[in-house]
Amino acid sequence: MESAKQVLASQNIETPSWAFGNSGTRFKVFAQQGVPRDPFEKLADAAQVHRFTGTAGSVALHIPWDKVEDYAALAAHAAEQGVRIGTINSNTFQDDDFMLGSVCHPDPGVRRKATDHLLECVDIMDATGSADLKLWFADGTNYPGQDSIADRQDRLAEVLSEVYGRLGEDQRLLLEYKLFEPSFYHTDVPDWGTAYAHCTELGPKAQVVIDTGHHAPGTNIEFIVAFLLRQGRLGGFDFNSRFYADDDLMVGSADPFQLFRILHELALREAIGPSSGIAYMLDQCHNIEPKIPAVIRSVMNVQEATAKALLVDRAALEAAQTSGDVLGANAVLMDAYNTDVRALLSDLRVEQGLDPDPMAAYAASGYADDIKSNRQGGQAAGWGA
Amino acid sequence: MESAKQVLASQNIETPSWAFGNSGTRFKVFAQQGVPRDPFEKLADAAQVHRFTGTAGSVALHIPWDKVEDYAALAAHAAEQGVRIGTINSNTFQDDDFMLGSVCHPDPGVRRKATDHLLECVDIMDATGSADLKLWFADGTNYPGQDSIADRQDRLAEVLSEVYGRLGEDQRLLLEYKLFEPSFYHTDVPDWGTAYAHCTELGPKAQVVIDTGHHAPGTNIEFIVAFLLRQGRLGGFDFNSRFYADDDLMVGSADPFQLFRILHELALREAIGPSSGIAYMLDQCHNIEPKIPAVIRSVMNVQEATAKALLVDRAALEAAQTSGDVLGANAVLMDAYNTDVRALLSDLRVEQGLDPDPMAAYAASGYADDIKSNRQGGQAAGWGA
Amino acid sequence: MESAKQVLASQNIETPSWAFGNSGTRFKVFAQQGVPRDPFEKLADAAQVHRFTGTAGSVALHIPWDKVEDYAALAAHAAEQGVRIGTINSNTFQDDDFMLGSVCHPDPGVRRKATDHLLECVDIMDATGSADLKLWFADGTNYPGQDSIADRQDRLAEVLSEVYGRLGEDQRLLLEYKLFEPSFYHTDVPDWGTAYAHCTELGPKAQVVIDTGHHAPGTNIEFIVAFLLRQGRLGGFDFNSRFYADDDLMVGSADPFQLFRILHELALREAIGPSSGIAYMLDQCHNIEPKIPAVIRSVMNVQEATAKALLVDRAALEAAQTSGDVLGANAVLMDAYNTDVRALLSDLRVEQGLDPDPMAAYAASGYADDIKSNRQGGQAAGWGA
Amino acid sequence: MESAKQVLASQNIETPSWAFGNSGTRFKVFAQQGVPRDPFEKLADAAQVHRFTGTAGSVALHIPWDKVEDYAALAAHAAEQGVRIGTINSNTFQDDDFMLGSVCHPDPGVRRKATDHLLECVDIMDATGSADLKLWFADGTNYPGQDSIADRQDRLAEVLSEVYGRLGEDQRLLLEYKLFEPSFYHTDVPDWGTAYAHCTELGPKAQVVIDTGHHAPGTNIEFIVAFLLRQGRLGGFDFNSRFYADDDLMVGSADPFQLFRILHELALREAIGPSSGIAYMLDQCHNIEPKIPAVIRSVMNVQEATAKALLVDRAALEAAQTSGDVLGANAVLMDAYNTDVRALLSDLRVEQGLDPDPMAAYAASGYADDIKSNRQGGQAAGWGA
Repeated sequence: MESAKQVLASQNIETPSWAFGNSGTRFKVFAQQGVPRDPFEKLADAAQVHRFTGTAGSVALHIPWDKVEDYAALAAHAAEQGVRIGTINSNTFQDDDFMLGSVCHPDPGVRRKATDHLLECVDIMDATGSADLKLWFADGTNYPGQDSIADRQDRLAEVLSEVYGRLGEDQRLLLEYKLFEPSFYHTDVPDWGTAYAHCTELGPKAQVVIDTGHHAPGTNIEFIVAFLLRQGRLGGFDFNSRFYADDDLMVGSADPFQLFRILHELALREAIGPSSGIAYMLDQCHNIEPKIPAVIRSVMNVQEATAKALLVDRAALEAAQTSGDVLGANAVLMDAYNTDVRALLSDLRVEQGLDPDPMAAYAASGYADDIKSNRQGGQAAGWGA
Repeated sequence: MESAKQVLASQNIETPSWAFGNSGTRFKVFAQQGVPRDPFEKLADAAQVHRFTGTAGSVALHIPWDKVEDYAALAAHAAEQGVRIGTINSNTFQDDDFMLGSVCHPDPGVRRKATDHLLECVDIMDATGSADLKLWFADGTNYPGQDSIADRQDRLAEVLSEVYGRLGEDQRLLLEYKLFEPSFYHTDVPDWGTAYAHCTELGPKAQVVIDTGHHAPGTNIEFIVAFLLRQGRLGGFDFNSRFYADDDLMVGSADPFQLFRILHELALREAIGPSSGIAYMLDQCHNIEPKIPAVIRSVMNVQEATAKALLVDRAALEAAQTSGDVLGANAVLMDAYNTDVRALLSDLRVEQGLDPDPMAAYAASGYADDIKSNRQGGQAAGWGA
Repeated sequence: MESAKQVLASQNIETPSWAFGNSGTRFKVFAQQGVPRDPFEKLADAAQVHRFTGTAGSVALHIPWDKVEDYAALAAHAAEQGVRIGTINSNTFQDDDFMLGSVCHPDPGVRRKATDHLLECVDIMDATGSADLKLWFADGTNYPGQDSIADRQDRLAEVLSEVYGRLGEDQRLLLEYKLFEPSFYHTDVPDWGTAYAHCTELGPKAQVVIDTGHHAPGTNIEFIVAFLLRQGRLGGFDFNSRFYADDDLMVGSADPFQLFRILHELALREAIGPSSGIAYMLDQCHNIEPKIPAVIRSVMNVQEATAKALLVDRAALEAAQTSGDVLGANAVLMDAYNTDVRALLSDLRVEQGLDPDPMAAYAASGYADDIKSNRQGGQAAGWGA
Repeated sequence: MESAKQVLASQNIETPSWAFGNSGTRFKVFAQQGVPRDPFEKLADAAQVHRFTGTAGSVALHIPWDKVEDYAALAAHAAEQGVRIGTINSNTFQDDDFMLGSVCHPDPGVRRKATDHLLECVDIMDATGSADLKLWFADGTNYPGQDSIADRQDRLAEVLSEVYGRLGEDQRLLLEYKLFEPSFYHTDVPDWGTAYAHCTELGPKAQVVIDTGHHAPGTNIEFIVAFLLRQGRLGGFDFNSRFYADDDLMVGSADPFQLFRILHELALREAIGPSSGIAYMLDQCHNIEPKIPAVIRSVMNVQEATAKALLVDRAALEAAQTSGDVLGANAVLMDAYNTDVRALLSDLRVEQGLDPDPMAAYAASGYADDIKSNRQGGQAAGWGA
């Protein structure tokens, strides 16, 4: 229990600045009230999550959505709010030039433009002190024959190599994969194998990111976690939930048992805390629910899954596994999963000087009303802004 | 061959007005040049498809995207262009009030608003002479517990009943189902069974629409076709292609064999021509390809699948089936599928006074350049406009 | 809490006789020791499950696997063991004549044979006092064109009608659906919609059975539960777990949250207890784990999911739903799910005079060793015997 | 056309000895008449496929199913029949010791036994002159927690390394992956990424095998083909078709367009002929159709897909791709796919001295009747024998 609490106290779950802006589906983006209008206000909202959970101390930025004149000022603002700037995320899918791809586009001019954007992201990392460049590419095709799958890999490798070369000594390139969307026939980094092969060719500073919503139906994600850990290539997570495609729902809301199994693989290898080098991030869309409490809830869901994973009786598990006791080994795991860990986490929060109930505390804080009143006018932030 | 040509000559494939406007994914809508700015220009574009294929004589409207002051004028404009107005499609997913649903919303006021929209669609049918009201509801929930699945069914049934009662004698209600998106936990009409059950409770004027992109992976769509035909409840199709989710690619581009199998079930029951009462429609998004030629190509793809289906040697098929000759029966079907029917369709076009190659003829027509030049200014039509 | 206990005390989960015999995959059936060699021994094993859980009072038979000379003797033997005979399950997939189907076979002679088997099952129901005939058909095709999908529906309807006509006043026909396997192109009852349509045509004694492993990926099973309950057509469940296809693992082992959501829909409609008329059955394969404890564990998993479902604060849920409080409504559900109900169930067992820990009590009983010693020689029961 | 014929004439498609024996599902193995009773008879049947197609000159063996006293005699028998022995396939899933795994089993004794079997397979390769050892492992778990995912990888790597070290200079290890079945929670080599990572660690003689039925729904197989070709790690194919899981139907029968797309990637890289080093194999189960004609048909399906792929106008394709002409590039591909290549292949056969219609020629040969008459008595070969 005490050691579980210690690990939990050290856990950091990074929130994404874009989770606080408006988002939606291709059918409609429903606007919410009190939504931030610039990166400073996004950081303020993210800081609320950390204020009530004590676990969300860093915030991922998305470039160009979070471009500012003065990154030092932005970093200082973050510090004032009690958080720090985390991962820098690139965006090479919203410029009109990128209709048929960015780093894999057949036109070298478009690839140059995309590459320059990635290099600019590293500049911003230098300016903000960020250690991780997270790359997700919307590149792919919609129709068979549209472009050469193989040539696109060559182009991708070339761009990645240039960007990798630009990284500072303590900076990493985190490469994300995704089965489909917005490309519908093929994507240029569809699975962990592709990301892994590129990373091993790039070097030790290139690592794979697992977005829990980016797999084919039936994929065993915890296997990928275990395998990448074994290979030393697990760079981080984009946590969220999905029932069907990349639904980007709150992590833990669709399949909490899967989330637990993922955390179990990590706990087994003592890979929860910051010394693991694994970036634990959220990447979600709160299309119809209020955004700040949704993020708080998501952080709590990860904490609960982690707590359960830390309660697994590893000695008993290993004994049952070694003896081929199928039901016994499964029972050890389920015993931890079936435990109600909410009191444990409440206790931890009290020890940390936090309210035991983050959701209630946030609701009582009046912050939601404040932003609704104060953020009148201006342009609400969203995926396209 | 001749009888196949006769059926093909009678085939009508309805094009959707919205296919000619801009569309995209949640990540980006890439604007194209020359896109129509109002329903009149959409009809003009749709007429080009008919001009070169001879098969796309009707155009589906989407309300409110295609709202006009004077529907008689719109219908007259269509007639001038050589097409007619087909299905009326409702939209109850883009008003801010519909964030948590429309006809299934817990608030009776919101349901009233949605119902009134549907009734207005019937008014427009009366004004345009349309026979079919096509209903697709984005209703559903994103999170378990968010709303009562069962109560929402009751609300849905009540609204459908009111709208059904408003239909004229020769008007039909076509109910579409969809597994997911934009709702991610449950949708209120997720599958054909749900649509079928509601239709049988409503009465004979209620029929099920199959959108080929709206199923779970692995669903055998031609089974559903055969089953609904048997029950007398197949109202129509929304044709498109998908590799993963509801990708809305050009019909026949992802799995042409599946399209053939669907048409085979229809051909077997003489359900291709207009007397079948089945509305054959396209419902696609041409996000990255030029829209008019993409629709022409889609119409041709349906024609080719139909031609192959009409070439199936039914007597040989039945003989093989009856005798339990698995390979023989399959071979009869594959023999038709493997036939190159493009010359047959070229011949048919020439007989109809059309160019044998619709794609080339459109390209040579100069229409694409014309609309790029002439449609300067104004607001390009799109899913949100 | 007390009312939850009351409902739990009334719950009956039927075990299948075949779960105690050997099973496997197409690659290998691994034989276990102490496996029953006849229906009497299967009932003895099933009685152990009831002895330690108090919840598994009925046992499903599978014909012809469980054919005996004297069904009255078998029923008496069951009663001596403390259980009763439940559902009668038909088998029309293992006779060589059924290679291309049974009730849908193109040959009327084969259909007659299959129908006669079903009628014999009703005879056995009369002899054993069983109320439910559960029909699952392996019928379907492997290749497009192999047989007429539509004609097979007609044949199916005809057979079902004859069997329905043979049912006694208090007997029901429970129709199961399955997406695929052992047929790989189409199955003749692939989804709930098909089963539902046949049942409504047959009459009120025909009901749909949901096997939780028989759906396409992404299917929302609790929606089907809610819908069939609304239509009065939910006859029962075949519980098991799946990660990919019809894996037939222990219920609750793959997605315990889904199992909870299913039970929640049932609890909402007071449909847990025997008065609901819903047959709660297990249908699982314990290929690599010892069978009796696997079934005990499965029964406990259903109990735990039920207990959580009964703890949902319905008033709070409805209030949150009505007010459109997405996070609040979801939280009410998750609050129940996250509760550890194992102590509640242990208490209930003690009140019922049972050991609080069924797994440990069974292990301590020595039964497993007894059957290993006593069941030497003979032919172990299995799927094929 | 001529160059296409040249490539087609050089193509070899290996047939599997086990395709000629009985197979089935877990529900039933339907026995067919005239089925071979030993490896010699299997080779005789395989030779029929080559006799009528001219393209199936090698036959894969499966050990221990095809164990014989004298492998030189078996190879000589093959040569007499006009075929040669190809890949050696291992089987570590049917011994009772392998219930919980083979090379990944927690017990070192079981791993030793499995490893020895693999080494024996290399001995047989030496004796038969086979160049390729194809490894597919049924290893995995059914329940979360059952065994350590990570430890199993270590065990796997150790065994692979030992076997790799035993290979002769011109021998290869082909590692196959599979998403699921017969293991249902996790498999130890679930995807191409896992196989690829192990192969790169082993060395240049280790290559990945793609079984077209072993992927999650929605997986873009041609991407994997293109990627592995780029990395120099594509060792071969196990061709078959699937609608749902690993259905093992005739290749090209479920999604002929996908098969064409796969061959297109190979044709683009001149990787069809034997100099490519890619082993093109069938791996299918003919559960309900006669086996020899099913294999002939399968070979023809691969030939037709290859022919279409060879007809793609590469210059036009590249021009359209480079200019970003989405519809044009897709049209080039579809133009080849829509071509009826059956006459081309008939011509080729006549040039090769074969009957233009292999199916009819086989049917007319009387071989099917001969084996039904001559193969009375004995034990028909099957998956378990």
